[in-house]
Amino acid sequence: MKIDGVPYRTIWPAADGAVEILDQTLFPHRFEILRLTGLDEAAHAIRAMQVRGAPLIGATAAYGLALALRKDASDAGLASAAATLLATRPTAVNLHWALERMKAALAPLAPAERADAAWAEAAALCDEDVAINAAIGDHGLKIVEELAAKKAPGEPVRILTHCNAGWLATVDWGTATAPIYKAHDKGVPVEVWVDETRPRNQGAFLTAWELGRHGVPHKVIVDNAGGHLMQRGLVDMVIVGTDRTTARGDVCNKIGTYLKALAAHDNGVPFYVALPSPTIDFTVDDGFEIPIEERSGDEVSWLPGLTDAGDYTRVRLTPETSPAANPAFDVTPARLVTALVTERGVCPATREGIAGLFPERAAA
Amino acid sequence: MKIDGVPYRTIWPAADGAVEILDQTLFPHRFEILRLTGLDEAAHAIRAMQVRGAPLIGATAAYGLALALRKDASDAGLASAAATLLATRPTAVNLHWALERMKAALAPLAPAERADAAWAEAAALCDEDVAINAAIGDHGLKIVEELAAKKAPGEPVRILTHCNAGWLATVDWGTATAPIYKAHDKGVPVEVWVDETRPRNQGAFLTAWELGRHGVPHKVIVDNAGGHLMQRGLVDMVIVGTDRTTARGDVCNKIGTYLKALAAHDNGVPFYVALPSPTIDFTVDDGFEIPIEERSGDEVSWLPGLTDAGDYTRVRLTPETSPAANPAFDVTPARLVTALVTERGVCPATREGIAGLFPERAAA
Repeated sequence: MKIDGVPYRTIWPAADGAVEILDQTLFPHRFEILRLTGLDEAAHAIRAMQVRGAPLIGATAAYGLALALRKDASDAGLASAAATLLATRPTAVNLHWALERMKAALAPLAPAERADAAWAEAAALCDEDVAINAAIGDHGLKIVEELAAKKAPGEPVRILTHCNAGWLATVDWGTATAPIYKAHDKGVPVEVWVDETRPRNQGAFLTAWELGRHGVPHKVIVDNAGGHLMQRGLVDMVIVGTDRTTARGDVCNKIGTYLKALAAHDNGVPFYVALPSPTIDFTVDDGFEIPIEERSGDEVSWLPGLTDAGDYTRVRLTPETSPAANPAFDVTPARLVTALVTERGVCPATREGIAGLFPERAAA
Repeated sequence: MKIDGVPYRTIWPAADGAVEILDQTLFPHRFEILRLTGLDEAAHAIRAMQVRGAPLIGATAAYGLALALRKDASDAGLASAAATLLATRPTAVNLHWALERMKAALAPLAPAERADAAWAEAAALCDEDVAINAAIGDHGLKIVEELAAKKAPGEPVRILTHCNAGWLATVDWGTATAPIYKAHDKGVPVEVWVDETRPRNQGAFLTAWELGRHGVPHKVIVDNAGGHLMQRGLVDMVIVGTDRTTARGDVCNKIGTYLKALAAHDNGVPFYVALPSPTIDFTVDDGFEIPIEERSGDEVSWLPGLTDAGDYTRVRLTPETSPAANPAFDVTPARLVTALVTERGVCPATREGIAGLFPERAAA
């Protein structure tokens, strides 16, 4: 996507052999490009959440491994670098997947060939992510265009989204944002309601930033506001991402997604989930079997931001003696999901719908 | 209610003729008692939101008038003081109501009698608010006790509330909190899920503070979390306040209430609205006719709090170029409300239910 007119991915190889990323810890208040020149910097970038979002974490690990192999491409060097990278975010499924893929491609090669091959494999992994998201965008674009066709010319399709299933979480396009960018780039007028997404404010910090830099009209709202906007006919569709979707179409996503799905259902607003097919978990059927991470209450009690004077700080919201509970995800039952938007097309959030698009995985 | 064991109201006459209040602008991080000795201080307290909540604003205006009449009890003085107080928050219905009541009681009297009479009338107005809320508490207590009876001994009734319909918004007890305090004081174990209530954080700032000071077990949660907690069986009832309820039982309350009502309905969790009967608007039937205040986007974009160093400051959450929308209230349709808890008892959120409890007003 573009930042003030200039095309960027979230990670890219520099001409001099380094890898460059955007430092997402400074968003939305500062924009800085970080250079990764070796394993330690790549590992730090993942650990310190300078990159976040499953696809981007995987891509950063792949490039981190490529940087490491330049210095030591032995079997021991490969194993050690992969272990270092895996330890940065031990529960990140995509990190594990990307490193396994890299090791499988590189281990059979002679050490002298590994560095160049790793570089190519990391680039391929990135390109595949971009292609998947672009395909999600193309399929979702049709939905947006159908809604636009029912409107007066020039009147925007109003799209509500929750959290950041955006460009910044992927290598490019994002998942839930891909149809939005595709529509905007094609001249279909869209306006986005951006849920701020407490407690970590990924909407206010990241989605608002990336939509704004690309030039997509949007407004930030508190998470409480979406139901009211739907009641008043001010939302034409909802689209969100997902961390994991089950074989029957239950959707695990950022806490609060379920409330928006309920409001959409109550008001006849279509509710879409954009997902790259690797996030479908065919081993789970009932979404309520997915364990929900309970994170630190400090994420609720403290809030980071920029002071009037331009300094980063954090402020405490709650009384010191009040504990906070912080479940990080919730499950939206398939019955509330209008359809899933995947890289292979749009399907109902049902076992049959999913199996129809991904027969080879559903049968496995 | 009590603050660390000591009983307080939110406003009270001091022995020396001043009026004392809690400075709510400092909550939850500092506790200070403010003295009001004249009209200007009372008007400032309302304007600067050192007091807030409809009943407490009315009570402060009543005492402000009493303070003013000590200096000038003439017809002109009475009219001028009332006008000054009314101008502090021109859209506050309860402020208007309290001042009209005071004027009606005082205008017929000789000027020499007005100061003492005003003092007594203000005290009566406060006592009536306390009595109404205590009655709401008693009726709501029965609901909590019925839920407690179904639990293992000692297991708490888990109650979710949104915003601050609490003690701090009234003279004592609060509305939605009254059944909670009554239950806690009677030894019925309760635990409260406190919605932080973005964008103004009345839950995190005020409800958490007052529950904590009184000793009621509670946890602060982001507004996104309630649906998930209900899905997992962790909420036994929801109770909220209301700014205005229509003749057929539609409930206008703080933005986000509707989402919680949807989640309660979807999960079979009873959803109660506590309301003093003056907030029933018999002139409106369809809640969607109530105009919804759109407040400044700055309330979304900036957030006040206390730094690690103990300083009050505010931090910006959103990118400077991202606008924010900020509807302040939403409407929960009567179909989602299990019952209304009023000072005269509990009734269904229907025209018949409300008219049954308040026949003299429904017929008017």
